[in-house]
Amino acid sequence: MIKTIDVRSSARSELIDITGEVQSAIDDSGIKDGVCHLFVLHTTAGLTINEGADPSVKRDIPAYLDKTVPRHGDYRHMEGNSDSHIKASLTGASEMVIIEGGKAVLGVWQAIYFCEFDGPRQRKVAVKILGN
Amino acid sequence: MIKTIDVRSSARSELIDITGEVQSAIDDSGIKDGVCHLFVLHTTAGLTINEGADPSVKRDIPAYLDKTVPRHGDYRHMEGNSDSHIKASLTGASEMVIIEGGKAVLGVWQAIYFCEFDGPRQRKVAVKILGN
Amino acid sequence: MIKTIDVRSSARSELIDITGEVQSAIDDSGIKDGVCHLFVLHTTAGLTINEGADPSVKRDIPAYLDKTVPRHGDYRHMEGNSDSHIKASLTGASEMVIIEGGKAVLGVWQAIYFCEFDGPRQRKVAVKILGN
Repeated sequence: MIKTIDVRSSARSELIDITGEVQSAIDDSGIKDGVCHLFVLHTTAGLTINEGADPSVKRDIPAYLDKTVPRHGDYRHMEGNSDSHIKASLTGASEMVIIEGGKAVLGVWQAIYFCEFDGPRQRKVAVKILGN
Repeated sequence: MIKTIDVRSSARSELIDITGEVQSAIDDSGIKDGVCHLFVLHTTAGLTINEGADPSVKRDIPAYLDKTVPRHGDYRHMEGNSDSHIKASLTGASEMVIIEGGKAVLGVWQAIYFCEFDGPRQRKVAVKILGN
Repeated sequence: MIKTIDVRSSARSELIDITGEVQSAIDDSGIKDGVCHLFVLHTTAGLTINEGADPSVKRDIPAYLDKTVPRHGDYRHMEGNSDSHIKASLTGASEMVIIEGGKAVLGVWQAIYFCEFDGPRQRKVAVKILGN
């Protein structure tokens, strides 16, 4: 069975740090050297890797997307969340991190973020770890 | 030899659902558990994963990109398709799906799309499947 | 130990062709058939795959991003590089290429670019190669 990370969002647009959950999934796998693939199982959410130190960065990114992809526009999709679908394609449904010595290899400032674009909702991220 | 999916586009900007072709490639590989990597072999096309149920979503995404990346702008590239190159970098050249029980693991609403940004053309997507 | 590619940027926004360095890393690995994963260890830089033949394309992409993500905006992050973080999430921290016969499988016009968004700086791209 595939491993999943459960995420509970509390706003319509929001970045949620899942770095700890990803490292736990790597720990559980026992794999010391390989690649960890993450995949969002939704069409109005995404994944991104960006600064984790200053919490203002995780606010600037969805704020920029809210401005550049207007909520109400000339859309065909009638559910009121066309902007959420577009933002999902701009950030992308998957991310990967390299594993070395059992640890996710990240730069000093990097964190792994779940990107909510149509919350608040209960969400799932699938995890697949391949050993070397 | 590498496996490829052939795509024929019929408009300048268009999303084409290739989920069935990707599943066929997974079936042909015989791999039941692993990762399927997709890679566009062109510089004016991309890949994205988004809603497959309502066909209006696959129209809203390229329509948004057409609006935000103007076709005629202050570009240096003189072939008239600078916007296509930029859109290709915004969506990205690759996507991946996890394979479990021989099936691509996708959310209920997810489909895999080839993104044409300078069609109509004949295109190729390379497929690489790694088993666990 | 993980393999890294060192990149020295010379402008604030710039695309730098690292295709040769990626092929060298594949050569060094001795792996003939598999996947090469690339991962930027920074939060104000990204990776993209786009045209390598006409150098104007690698200027049009950061020029577009500079225009669409203004340097001075209504940002919370106070280091003056919020636009760099946003551009990093739009291009993404990782890329992958398929390896066949010891060579990166790329389309005729494709090159692999490091995307600098807050240079000039010394940067690192992590490389992980998985054999089939």
